[in-house]
Amino acid sequence: MVKALVFDVFGTVVDWRSSLINELSAWGAGLGLTVDWPGLVDAWRGAYAPSMDRVRRGEQPWTKLDDLHRASLLTLAPRFGLTGLDEAALDWVNRAWHRLRPWPDSVAGLIRLKAKFIIGPLSNGNVALLVNMAKHAGLPWDTVLGAEVFRHYKPDPEAYLGTAALLGLPPEQVMLCAAHNADLAAARSCGLRTAFVLRSTEYGPAQAKDLRAESDWDHSVGSIMALADALGA
Amino acid sequence: MVKALVFDVFGTVVDWRSSLINELSAWGAGLGLTVDWPGLVDAWRGAYAPSMDRVRRGEQPWTKLDDLHRASLLTLAPRFGLTGLDEAALDWVNRAWHRLRPWPDSVAGLIRLKAKFIIGPLSNGNVALLVNMAKHAGLPWDTVLGAEVFRHYKPDPEAYLGTAALLGLPPEQVMLCAAHNADLAAARSCGLRTAFVLRSTEYGPAQAKDLRAESDWDHSVGSIMALADALGA
Repeated sequence: MVKALVFDVFGTVVDWRSSLINELSAWGAGLGLTVDWPGLVDAWRGAYAPSMDRVRRGEQPWTKLDDLHRASLLTLAPRFGLTGLDEAALDWVNRAWHRLRPWPDSVAGLIRLKAKFIIGPLSNGNVALLVNMAKHAGLPWDTVLGAEVFRHYKPDPEAYLGTAALLGLPPEQVMLCAAHNADLAAARSCGLRTAFVLRSTEYGPAQAKDLRAESDWDHSVGSIMALADALGA
Repeated sequence: MVKALVFDVFGTVVDWRSSLINELSAWGAGLGLTVDWPGLVDAWRGAYAPSMDRVRRGEQPWTKLDDLHRASLLTLAPRFGLTGLDEAALDWVNRAWHRLRPWPDSVAGLIRLKAKFIIGPLSNGNVALLVNMAKHAGLPWDTVLGAEVFRHYKPDPEAYLGTAALLGLPPEQVMLCAAHNADLAAARSCGLRTAFVLRSTEYGPAQAKDLRAESDWDHSVGSIMALADALGA
């Protein structure tokens, strides 16, 4: 019945928080910078939803995620001790989102699922970010359709329905796999099938949300390998 | 310098003519149909450019290739003896374009190129057609961006420039690889790099065009394996 599995990426497939903190800390140490990297990374991610919401509400024209990330970084960097970067260094920091590392089970699970289903991201990332991430992390997507193809950010229905339409499938033949209950609720309201993937440390050791499936999603698993088991892939 | 290789698909990566004739002949024989399959296939492909041109000139609203193919098939089928099909059979015939076979060198060459470059189609096919074809034929694309993402058919500049923009690259870091001189000329006029791949039997044994590179393209090769050699991949 289900022909395509589409994945939330930040948090579900890649560990954005540890990746950013680890890579930027090592880079900053090499330059002798004194920066509160965990604080900056958490604040940067904290700016993510509000920045997309301004676009979703029409207060700002369509802006791809790379540019939202960069604007947020420019605002936040001085508060956490990151100052004096030239354009090239700033761009390198911003493009750390293109170099995020997968959770340990992601690549092996996706390879199994790819043998049985069409797989791709359904992410708010832009195409270049997601393609570069896939090359860097070895994510074996069949296709990468980023948010700017639809010019809508999740949870706008256009993102979910547009993905199904481009794949030539009715919504009920597409399953969203995500670590976030709100994302799954929006997908279900568009007619997609749903799989919850628990990522209990996405937001660090003190994570307080998305620690369990909050609805009767079609599947609820602890990893992408477990999702492959559940789907017989 | 070049970061992404984008490929014309019909003719350059897959052998549409032999694939369609062979598959449909075998299928028709099983049903006892008496159809001039080579004639139908050549006429069907002959309707391809005119059907897109009507969209490109604005005489018809945006229509994806699957639907252009289907309309052409409905018009042509009776002339070649193909009549009496129900909707499901007609759809199966139309979706033969989703099941085209690669040239013998395509998959091995693309696997080599993928290790060094971002690779993807730059085709007039729609996303679902190209994704299904890739699954069927084992084409290891990094991403699949079909014509309906841009709502423009080649040789409109929006198709070439839109692909580079979505990949986050300036046109000169993107190379079109194609068996058709006119496609390469349009890509060059948009600032892309160019590679001619000779496919001397795409149109059958009596092929009369695209039998040689007609300009000083950046590369001119006889296969995708030879392209990998030329690019050190």
